[in-house]
Amino acid sequence: MGSKKVLILGGDGYLGWPTAMYLSEQGHEVAVVDNFIKRQWQAEKGTEPLMPISTLHERIKVWKEVSGKSIELFVGNLTNHRFVYSVFSKFQPDSIIHYAEQPSAPFSMIDRHHAVLTQTNNVVGTLNVMFAMQHSCPNAHLIKLGTMGEYGTPNIDIEEGYLDVEHNGRKDKVLFPKKPFSFYHLSKVHDSHNLYFAAQVWGMRVTDLNQGVVYGADTDETRRHEKLVTSFHYDEVFGTALNRFCVQAVEGVPLTIYGDGTQTRSFLNIRDTLKCVEIAVDNPADAGEFRVFNQFTEIFSMNELALHVQEAAKKHGYKVEIKAIKNPRVEKSNHYYKPTNSSLLSLGLDPIHLSDALFDDVLARVKEFKHRINTDVIYPTVKWQHDTNKADDSDSDLMVVEGTAA
Amino acid sequence: MGSKKVLILGGDGYLGWPTAMYLSEQGHEVAVVDNFIKRQWQAEKGTEPLMPISTLHERIKVWKEVSGKSIELFVGNLTNHRFVYSVFSKFQPDSIIHYAEQPSAPFSMIDRHHAVLTQTNNVVGTLNVMFAMQHSCPNAHLIKLGTMGEYGTPNIDIEEGYLDVEHNGRKDKVLFPKKPFSFYHLSKVHDSHNLYFAAQVWGMRVTDLNQGVVYGADTDETRRHEKLVTSFHYDEVFGTALNRFCVQAVEGVPLTIYGDGTQTRSFLNIRDTLKCVEIAVDNPADAGEFRVFNQFTEIFSMNELALHVQEAAKKHGYKVEIKAIKNPRVEKSNHYYKPTNSSLLSLGLDPIHLSDALFDDVLARVKEFKHRINTDVIYPTVKWQHDTNKADDSDSDLMVVEGTAA
Repeated sequence: MGSKKVLILGGDGYLGWPTAMYLSEQGHEVAVVDNFIKRQWQAEKGTEPLMPISTLHERIKVWKEVSGKSIELFVGNLTNHRFVYSVFSKFQPDSIIHYAEQPSAPFSMIDRHHAVLTQTNNVVGTLNVMFAMQHSCPNAHLIKLGTMGEYGTPNIDIEEGYLDVEHNGRKDKVLFPKKPFSFYHLSKVHDSHNLYFAAQVWGMRVTDLNQGVVYGADTDETRRHEKLVTSFHYDEVFGTALNRFCVQAVEGVPLTIYGDGTQTRSFLNIRDTLKCVEIAVDNPADAGEFRVFNQFTEIFSMNELALHVQEAAKKHGYKVEIKAIKNPRVEKSNHYYKPTNSSLLSLGLDPIHLSDALFDDVLARVKEFKHRINTDVIYPTVKWQHDTNKADDSDSDLMVVEGTAA
Repeated sequence: MGSKKVLILGGDGYLGWPTAMYLSEQGHEVAVVDNFIKRQWQAEKGTEPLMPISTLHERIKVWKEVSGKSIELFVGNLTNHRFVYSVFSKFQPDSIIHYAEQPSAPFSMIDRHHAVLTQTNNVVGTLNVMFAMQHSCPNAHLIKLGTMGEYGTPNIDIEEGYLDVEHNGRKDKVLFPKKPFSFYHLSKVHDSHNLYFAAQVWGMRVTDLNQGVVYGADTDETRRHEKLVTSFHYDEVFGTALNRFCVQAVEGVPLTIYGDGTQTRSFLNIRDTLKCVEIAVDNPADAGEFRVFNQFTEIFSMNELALHVQEAAKKHGYKVEIKAIKNPRVEKSNHYYKPTNSSLLSLGLDPIHLSDALFDDVLARVKEFKHRINTDVIYPTVKWQHDTNKADDSDSDLMVVEGTAA
């Protein structure tokens, strides 16, 4: 489809770094932006990725050694608009892939401080990107990562971004009404509304990718050198369900299901994330179009997911227990869930199936790094409903870490 | 209905101050919060309210002299959470009336700086209020001012906050899908989503008042002393359409219609705003309820509104011209517009009609202060669509004021 200048925001992350290598490998001219604040947030929660992660500077150097291809690095914060304007003005991207948001629902629910941090970081960062594009590259294509969690679990089929409504005999096409799960998911809903407006008023080209829960530890590129691995999280705050289950299976502790496990969500393999983003890069939205793709490949309840892990692990000699614990979140059980995902399929996505990918893509890698598993960070401590009138609600800048406070 | 402790956020403003006096007069125990940042924003735009406004401290003193009633004052910024927690903890309100947001669509559209300022000020302020309520008064009732402009002009009837949808044979009740007009209106949509979530997860009591365009210069209380007047704006940034038309009529300059004037909006008299807010105070939302009222009494196109002003002014000897100018905004003309407003009517609101109120409530007061009219601040300069690649888009902290820059 021809080489493009692709700017990846959040290039140090679980998805950003593999995307950078993948698109670089495909022949695009890639630059990455990051301020490494997620590394700070990990430190705050006392957690680390399963595999050791080199600095981004070093990963870029190693990528150049193994592939011969250069990735440009801009270090800075998207909430600093002068930085954003300077990057866009200098790099002049054709496509911008925007992963650079606080990505954790539990992190956003810790307390006031984390809720405000999540919403300001994500909304202001995206506003700055929108204005920088208007300034430097109004014809470029913004590919913005959203989440299927923005939709929540409505009692109707979930369409891709829009809903045709008929009401009192009249019709309209509206943004699909959303019921997000957390202050994090809400921040993405706010972004989507801002972007929809900017597409209509400024003629921006926007693709909003409402992504399911991503699983997987590797891509073709991360396997090319031990220093090219990506930041695989399994902790309660930054880990996703399936990655966490795989770590629990290998460690020999029970897989922890929140509540009755009937909550149903959509999922995709990390390698499919790269394919989806590539499809978006190759097929830009029209000028003035706010296009929404639901980016997932399979649907499972938490119970089904745990059973898949149990079965895959069993084949390789692991005996896996499954244990229901009190749900720290507020979410529906036994709910209807039927999201559509036809857009990316019709553009050529050929999905990887969980049942095929589970061992090779996750369990084998977890086994290799079993010695680094820290079981202290897995059990959920962040609750959606707080006791009121507690001191730590009012003074959220000072966090009390259980077991260490006087 | 019994005396309540009512905390009014934004108590220095056009609506906040009259609301404070009105509810004080009704026997409630009233406290007001303001940081006077709107006075700074007015200064930034070189505009002043039509009638001179005393300090809030002095207005509270005069109110005590004329009514015998006290209003408590807290000076501070809602984006400072320590201030918010301390006010809520000290005053322990039963009802919170939240007017304290950046209230202007054009202000939010000036540039990046003003868009980000509007969204962070409004969203963070409201988040801090939500968390402070959780901490100090989880059973209190938050009455949040939204706007009818959040809905935009959909092609279907506008219901009060929710829409019953049927899709592929299944049903759900969802937040009414919104098509807001500006970054300001978007900030209110973000607030509404955050509050809907908090009502569901924390059991908050919330009433979201989607208010129409307010007109009027006086209430019973503002007329009791010259120092009790409210901040009547008529400039392009903080003035509302009808108030601006009345000033143009009295000044003898043409009423300026943006575009073809077929844009249709909902309106209400400032005295009805007070009644609506009182109805909300007297009838709190249930625990866990995010209740939405559409708060307006009449619907006019801009052309109809201008004709009303022309006619009312003519009766009092003014010859009024109407002039269409290029629309600085992006908005639909000749659109469908049918919003519902039955909730407040069913709770006892007895609407004041524009045709009856126009002269007494606005034109007479404008006539009295004709000598203070500044025609320099009326004509629209803020545009929804910017030329790209202009220096002033990228460096928005430094504003160039036309006519004064070198």
